[in-house]
Amino acid sequence: MSLTTAANPTAPEPHAYPLLIKQLLLTPLAVRPAQEIVYGDKVRFDYRTLQARIGQLAGLLTSLGVKHGDTVAVMDWDSNRYLESYFAVPMLGAVLMMVNIRLAPEQIAYTLNHSGARVLLANREFLPMLEGIDGQLPDLRTRILLDDAEGPLPTGFVTEYEAGLREATPIGSFPDFDENTRATMFYTTGTTGRPKGVYFSHRQLVLHSLTAMAALGSAPGQGRLHRDDVYMPITPMFHVHAWGLPYVATLMGVKQVYPGRYLPGQLLALIAREKVTFSHCVPTILRMLLDHPAAADSDLRGWKVIIGGAALPRALAQQALACGIDIFGGYGMSETCPLLTLAQIDASALADSDEALSLRTKAGIPVPLVDLRIVDENMHDVAHDGIATGEVVVRAPWLTQGYLHDPGASAALWAGGYLHTGDIGNIDTGGYLRVTDRIKDVIKTGGEWISSLALEDIIALHPAVSEVAVIGITDAKWGERPLPLVVRQAGSEVSEAEIIELVAARSRTGDISRYAVPDRVSFVESIARTSVGKINKKQLRCLHDPGSADAR
Amino acid sequence: MSLTTAANPTAPEPHAYPLLIKQLLLTPLAVRPAQEIVYGDKVRFDYRTLQARIGQLAGLLTSLGVKHGDTVAVMDWDSNRYLESYFAVPMLGAVLMMVNIRLAPEQIAYTLNHSGARVLLANREFLPMLEGIDGQLPDLRTRILLDDAEGPLPTGFVTEYEAGLREATPIGSFPDFDENTRATMFYTTGTTGRPKGVYFSHRQLVLHSLTAMAALGSAPGQGRLHRDDVYMPITPMFHVHAWGLPYVATLMGVKQVYPGRYLPGQLLALIAREKVTFSHCVPTILRMLLDHPAAADSDLRGWKVIIGGAALPRALAQQALACGIDIFGGYGMSETCPLLTLAQIDASALADSDEALSLRTKAGIPVPLVDLRIVDENMHDVAHDGIATGEVVVRAPWLTQGYLHDPGASAALWAGGYLHTGDIGNIDTGGYLRVTDRIKDVIKTGGEWISSLALEDIIALHPAVSEVAVIGITDAKWGERPLPLVVRQAGSEVSEAEIIELVAARSRTGDISRYAVPDRVSFVESIARTSVGKINKKQLRCLHDPGSADAR
Repeated sequence: MSLTTAANPTAPEPHAYPLLIKQLLLTPLAVRPAQEIVYGDKVRFDYRTLQARIGQLAGLLTSLGVKHGDTVAVMDWDSNRYLESYFAVPMLGAVLMMVNIRLAPEQIAYTLNHSGARVLLANREFLPMLEGIDGQLPDLRTRILLDDAEGPLPTGFVTEYEAGLREATPIGSFPDFDENTRATMFYTTGTTGRPKGVYFSHRQLVLHSLTAMAALGSAPGQGRLHRDDVYMPITPMFHVHAWGLPYVATLMGVKQVYPGRYLPGQLLALIAREKVTFSHCVPTILRMLLDHPAAADSDLRGWKVIIGGAALPRALAQQALACGIDIFGGYGMSETCPLLTLAQIDASALADSDEALSLRTKAGIPVPLVDLRIVDENMHDVAHDGIATGEVVVRAPWLTQGYLHDPGASAALWAGGYLHTGDIGNIDTGGYLRVTDRIKDVIKTGGEWISSLALEDIIALHPAVSEVAVIGITDAKWGERPLPLVVRQAGSEVSEAEIIELVAARSRTGDISRYAVPDRVSFVESIARTSVGKINKKQLRCLHDPGSADAR
Repeated sequence: MSLTTAANPTAPEPHAYPLLIKQLLLTPLAVRPAQEIVYGDKVRFDYRTLQARIGQLAGLLTSLGVKHGDTVAVMDWDSNRYLESYFAVPMLGAVLMMVNIRLAPEQIAYTLNHSGARVLLANREFLPMLEGIDGQLPDLRTRILLDDAEGPLPTGFVTEYEAGLREATPIGSFPDFDENTRATMFYTTGTTGRPKGVYFSHRQLVLHSLTAMAALGSAPGQGRLHRDDVYMPITPMFHVHAWGLPYVATLMGVKQVYPGRYLPGQLLALIAREKVTFSHCVPTILRMLLDHPAAADSDLRGWKVIIGGAALPRALAQQALACGIDIFGGYGMSETCPLLTLAQIDASALADSDEALSLRTKAGIPVPLVDLRIVDENMHDVAHDGIATGEVVVRAPWLTQGYLHDPGASAALWAGGYLHTGDIGNIDTGGYLRVTDRIKDVIKTGGEWISSLALEDIIALHPAVSEVAVIGITDAKWGERPLPLVVRQAGSEVSEAEIIELVAARSRTGDISRYAVPDRVSFVESIARTSVGKINKKQLRCLHDPGSADAR
């Protein structure tokens, strides 16, 4: 397989070099062709074989009629097959649709139909779910089975993946095309409304990969990724390109380990057996790993782990550091490909200090080319003092240019020419971002943005407070004012004045803005929650704020 | 100064993010604004001041009428002023023309006129030379003095640089524009013909900077550049963007030291005082440094030095390693921005072994996105066995798209859709490139390319050989055949058969192709040399090969 178009000696044209995903394979194949790709305890092959299999998968898809601009959906756990589709599908000029297999079946059907996918690669484990929605997928008649169990081919499937690869006529040479060709897409899942499709071009993914490699490599010591590392994702490959790291790992030519479905005991065994040194995950799964019985017998020293998806809790960071894990935060989201910041820390802060721990738990510093601002409602920058908060808005060369078939949501996403993350945060004097809230949980009062979560944390410290939720109440003069809704501990007493003074004291020490001090407090019997147990602020505003849009 | 265009809240347009040089400043200003820029023992300021001075220089140039598309020429030693012009000129949409001050005055006049420069920034040291060619520069009437001596303003100059910056209305915000806008240009200097202009766009320089950062950062240990390094160029800033490293260093936010004119004693003093850890230079200047009396008292341990411009001699590498210098090769040229390969070595080869030394002296492995091939005359790849040679041809996102105003040379440069380096080399099984010859010194015989330099090295080992030059002689059957021209040592004897057997023995051990074994040898009285002492192969072919084009 040649990654380059055939040379034409009669055409002395300069090559303009559109940025294409196929180019990520150039260096590893030239320099580290014997490096390994491992899939659990099932498969192990080198980069030469990866290249050959990409050519075979492209051949198989071509034989099934996949053309430039078509969409190919994948439903799989983390595997070498997923990595092969990361390359083969876009290299054909087709769009890789990564199905979020954690969605409800009806949502999966919605996203498959909305994406326009014509071909589906599906792991046998998802067959029961697929059968349930089969009638809802009229356009998805070409299906390829991904099978770890080697069972019979079910009806409705044209081939099993490995058999298809064996029989395919491999594609030997991939053409150049416009770098703005769509390469990948997937769906974000908000708490309300339909999933929204985001999409990324070849150019965006190449720039994301180069920049992530540059950012991860240039750290003086802590949190750095280099060519002798061994990479294993623990964020699913259907979730924002597994943070883009499979592309980065391939570009660097490092050994890659794909663990299949995430089972803590198996993950720990793979880390030990394959000498994994670099991973990324959400806090929950790291806690599951560290709390697993096998963790006590595992040597996790030197394992580098980026935590994203949610803030890195201080206690978890301490627990991980105690195991010798180099743990640190990162920040991004589905709309941003995802990488925006990394909480790498300078050598000067490397000592096992409280400050270093704080920095590790932040979202981090922007990676190259990211123009990250914290702005107020008028798109004016707030101070970078670690206190003033505003919405995080960004520009970067790899942000989704909108939501698929949704001009209204796209316009809101890009209001003012910056992508609005919907997150509230502050930036300290060292340039580190801390994300404090989602914007919908923030109270805008007197020109300042007050974190309802921070207010709740303060009030919850009072021993007589059983539960607390703080919402913003419409106010003619201040825009909004904070209203704490407090459930008292049975048999305990606390007055409105005491609650107000609790916050006022913290504002006097500079921990929170004076605008956060509430004018009044409502004592309630209970606090409305959503089906998954989160405080239902929408319903609370509806109940307690007649001026709220939620009440109208 | 804002690096971003003002937000327009009424235009919810996604930002497409054209790649522009101004964006290289985003991260360092956000994260490391207090980092230092040092100019010799003259000036020291932080990145905030760099940003302010870039805005002032842009304001000064604007007040002098510089507009998008204009060309601004600079003649200076390595200085903070040069760094400022690296940013301010392209950020205005103008083209930075870096004048090679080592050219003859007439050639400098030619390049200034050919580039279309309207504004010149010139160091006072070059005034005598400029006066000599003043009549030849009719279009270059706007001149700014770069003055380290603080003398009076000479006639013909509109202002001195620092005075101009103080009085300028700073540019506060730089616009977005097409990323393919030309940003820089300079002239290559072949041994024959006029200097040829090469040019690079914003997009190309951003991609070159990101990739160099990624390649330099991702090395496991040896030859790596990180954010706590201190950078000092010892390749002039007028020479291929000082290998692009000033842009890379700025993007990484490292401390930068600019040494002015290269004087070995001062360079050693700066390395010590400013704790320089990363540099690049040609072999000659490193040898000058190491042979300088002050070198014996210098602690150069940990200093990382890329050697380019010529192959790194093994003896020099050993001398540098003995001083604790982490020395290694790199490869590129004016036409390639320049970075193509870096001779970083894996941890497994890090031991102080003969193999590691050999790897350090090679050109190296391709950096990401570089499609580097070794091809024969029909653009077919030769084997990567460390022996088979061919021309090095490349594609990368940062190669000049031609020579300015020279369609003929541009077409030859890009024959077959690959940039032809004019270099001959081989690639070993590990992917390392070694450059062995310039293509014009290669003998093409029996479908193989024979290095005349390698043949000369073999023959010169005979004790009776005083001088040797090998040229290719036109041959009806083989295309060319090698002809050694040998000057015997006075009083020594060596026969034609002995010379032929010397080469034949090396071909039997696989050191050189059997096609390299000459059919005959000419014994001559002397060997023609050029004015700078190089063997004049052109003249030798003319004298000894009636079939040569040089003889016609």
